[in-house]
Amino acid sequence: MSEQKSFHMSPEEFRRQGHAVVDWIADYQSRVESFPVLSRVQPGEIRSQLPAAAPERGEGFEQILGDMERVVLPGITHWQSPNFYAYFPANASGPAILGDLLSAGLGVQGMLWSTSPACTEVETRVLDWLVPMLGLPEKFLSTGSGGGVIQDTASSASLCALLAARERTTGFASNRKGCDGRLVAYCSTQTHSSIEKAMKIAGMGSDNLRHIEVDENFAMRPEALARQIELDMKAGLVPCFVCATVGTTSSNAVDPVREIGRICRERKLWLHVDSAMSGTAALCPEFRFINDGVELADSYTFNPHKWMFTNFDCNVFYVAERKHLIETLSILPEYLRNQATESGAVIDYRDWHIQLGRRFRSLKLWFVIRHYGIEGLQHHIREHVRLAQEFAGWVRGDSRFELAAPAQLNLVCFRLRAGEHTNQDQANQDRANQALMERLNNSGDLYLTHTKLDGKVTLRFCVGQTNTQARHVERAWERIQEEAGRV
Amino acid sequence: MSEQKSFHMSPEEFRRQGHAVVDWIADYQSRVESFPVLSRVQPGEIRSQLPAAAPERGEGFEQILGDMERVVLPGITHWQSPNFYAYFPANASGPAILGDLLSAGLGVQGMLWSTSPACTEVETRVLDWLVPMLGLPEKFLSTGSGGGVIQDTASSASLCALLAARERTTGFASNRKGCDGRLVAYCSTQTHSSIEKAMKIAGMGSDNLRHIEVDENFAMRPEALARQIELDMKAGLVPCFVCATVGTTSSNAVDPVREIGRICRERKLWLHVDSAMSGTAALCPEFRFINDGVELADSYTFNPHKWMFTNFDCNVFYVAERKHLIETLSILPEYLRNQATESGAVIDYRDWHIQLGRRFRSLKLWFVIRHYGIEGLQHHIREHVRLAQEFAGWVRGDSRFELAAPAQLNLVCFRLRAGEHTNQDQANQDRANQALMERLNNSGDLYLTHTKLDGKVTLRFCVGQTNTQARHVERAWERIQEEAGRV
Repeated sequence: MSEQKSFHMSPEEFRRQGHAVVDWIADYQSRVESFPVLSRVQPGEIRSQLPAAAPERGEGFEQILGDMERVVLPGITHWQSPNFYAYFPANASGPAILGDLLSAGLGVQGMLWSTSPACTEVETRVLDWLVPMLGLPEKFLSTGSGGGVIQDTASSASLCALLAARERTTGFASNRKGCDGRLVAYCSTQTHSSIEKAMKIAGMGSDNLRHIEVDENFAMRPEALARQIELDMKAGLVPCFVCATVGTTSSNAVDPVREIGRICRERKLWLHVDSAMSGTAALCPEFRFINDGVELADSYTFNPHKWMFTNFDCNVFYVAERKHLIETLSILPEYLRNQATESGAVIDYRDWHIQLGRRFRSLKLWFVIRHYGIEGLQHHIREHVRLAQEFAGWVRGDSRFELAAPAQLNLVCFRLRAGEHTNQDQANQDRANQALMERLNNSGDLYLTHTKLDGKVTLRFCVGQTNTQARHVERAWERIQEEAGRV
Repeated sequence: MSEQKSFHMSPEEFRRQGHAVVDWIADYQSRVESFPVLSRVQPGEIRSQLPAAAPERGEGFEQILGDMERVVLPGITHWQSPNFYAYFPANASGPAILGDLLSAGLGVQGMLWSTSPACTEVETRVLDWLVPMLGLPEKFLSTGSGGGVIQDTASSASLCALLAARERTTGFASNRKGCDGRLVAYCSTQTHSSIEKAMKIAGMGSDNLRHIEVDENFAMRPEALARQIELDMKAGLVPCFVCATVGTTSSNAVDPVREIGRICRERKLWLHVDSAMSGTAALCPEFRFINDGVELADSYTFNPHKWMFTNFDCNVFYVAERKHLIETLSILPEYLRNQATESGAVIDYRDWHIQLGRRFRSLKLWFVIRHYGIEGLQHHIREHVRLAQEFAGWVRGDSRFELAAPAQLNLVCFRLRAGEHTNQDQANQDRANQALMERLNNSGDLYLTHTKLDGKVTLRFCVGQTNTQARHVERAWERIQEEAGRV
């Protein structure tokens, strides 16, 4: 009786509708340039097109898919457009999408080795591959005392690094007794906001995060770091963690990891290196200067889901001593006990992050590396850097503009100069740059975002979208020049 | 020049390979019953089949997809097999897989409303749909003071609830100054281990989590809770948070939320309700008794990725007062500032969870609800409960077995009795049940897991996999009877 009625989609129906969805995505890829990059809808516009209540009876899949075009697309800001230069990229690619699709189709949970051994072992192997690919220190290999894990985002990875540092420093006492308000952590004024958020989450308090000053290139001043650590120690506080950034969000500045690392070693502080976007550049030997000193780090993170053509979410997090991380986050209730875990011969990744459950995320990363090969990945990274450098040269050659920070890799920070177009007045200059950005973004032709550097509104132009080519960057520069003439 | 060479998969190649992947998954769905449910590989077996280093040159997609069969499948424990009764289910379904695929294809970031308005607004609307669908209190609607957000897992959602409770209690001071070791939280001896993990992460300390005793049905004793709170207050500690569970992991026990809620109201403690698996049952009015008292909760969480046919990860988290959650987790660096955010007219979900970045996860949930309709979801939930109840009846009718806990919904906890098959000795009984489980799991015919209840090894049989039908449950019972005769 119960066998007769089912509302499930049968395998044959899945095959048919799955082909339709794949076709929809292939068509989307072909026409993505035709959409305004930044969505033009007003707040509430998408929501108002959805019924107020869920349907009592199921709807046909054609109708559901039809709403992608009618309801969803107008509300999309097209991160996969080659004209996307905002924030940092969040790249998709064919092999990544298909790896992710297989992960969804298999629908396995990788919380324990035993709940799908392949989910753990492919991940471990592929993250070991990445260590030499990026020229990272061997201590991050799973075959030694360290190892890597895929997390959702760099925010989560950095939180885990902070927690492991907290516990290593207190001899795992804060895990049991809670924090006491005396632990101190360090980053620069340019460090990503996720570190401040992590300080709050970890019960360490944002007041106990020191934002160390930066030099003229927006990189942390190690002597200022050392000075602040001394001050805090004299005040009876307990320094425990430093976050160095390789490629800051605002300007892609690279902190002096080697000098920071020496300071951390001397004082037994945990050094975490956040290379969320720029880490990918190290695929090319000529850009590996960014990793100078990383062998002094206790943990390191970068996001293949930014610049490495691997769909979000796919953050990679390495630790030099996995035992610290595992002891910090380990739980083993009776209902998770199993022979493989007790044998000690396997990795149970649930003890490497906040969450218990986990998808088979390594499939997409494995597919990307195999599809492109090291050669293909290097080719596209080089090309993005080349295009960004060319763009920086055009900015330098136009007297209306100035570069706001060194453009070392694929991010160019620039602004309209004060004076010629304004009253030499800072507020006016800021308004002009803001206006330029809004004109460009509202045109739909490209999308870029801003930051403040030295207190001034600065436009960020990040070349890293999967499909961005020379013609897109050339056209973007034309449009910037045009609109600059109008503000 | 740069236009000529590309290693990317073209839209046409994506279409071709995408069809092949969809076909692979449809075939997998058709043959999933033919695999042993629990993977039989040994530690290291999958890893040893992968090359030690990444390929220099890209490989053909046929070769990559071929390794799914050759390398990956033997290492899969088949969560999508209808013979999967272990842990709690992590269900996939056709519409969910395809919604997820579209999310990957669009590849948008929903950290801010402006970075893809549809990603935020579909989510808000669909989570508002679920409030009346589950008979939850109106205060969880986004149209009032509350609202819902999709998180990855209940672990993360419960951590956010604990953090918001911590901050509400301290007037948002611990966010700034860190914790001081005096905040206390409460759960039962049966509460999921994620709460203890959250206490560690939040810097509150696992020693400050009180595991309140349970009654004969494994539900929290509210009088014991009230007593412990009084004790802690007298000791100068600061009680701030209670987690009540609707459907515990070990036995699906339902804590008395209404009585716990009254205690929390009187003493101004934050009440969080974790209904990760069982929450879905409330789709059927006849099972809504589990939500009695939920109107007293400050937050509530359940996992459509468990029993609601929506691929992992998809946790739903509601709060009654979103301002507490947002004030706890909010960050706004310059590079994330934008007009829509400043207008206050939009939701920026980045302030509702740990991570900054986020996928378009509501697509799959929206697709599932529309594909099945309320009617279809109710049908399958009812059917699962009916089958579990039938199974519980068979256990009751076989003198070799005993039920270890009331089977209220779709989880049946049972064990071989002591005595007849053993020396009345607890260790022997445990060994017999462990042996029974291992024989069943090693046979590949089904997969179930254990827990301990009243200190005794107990087998858990959870009926909730998308495709489990009467014939599967009947066959499972036959196999259990057979193997019971052999231990």
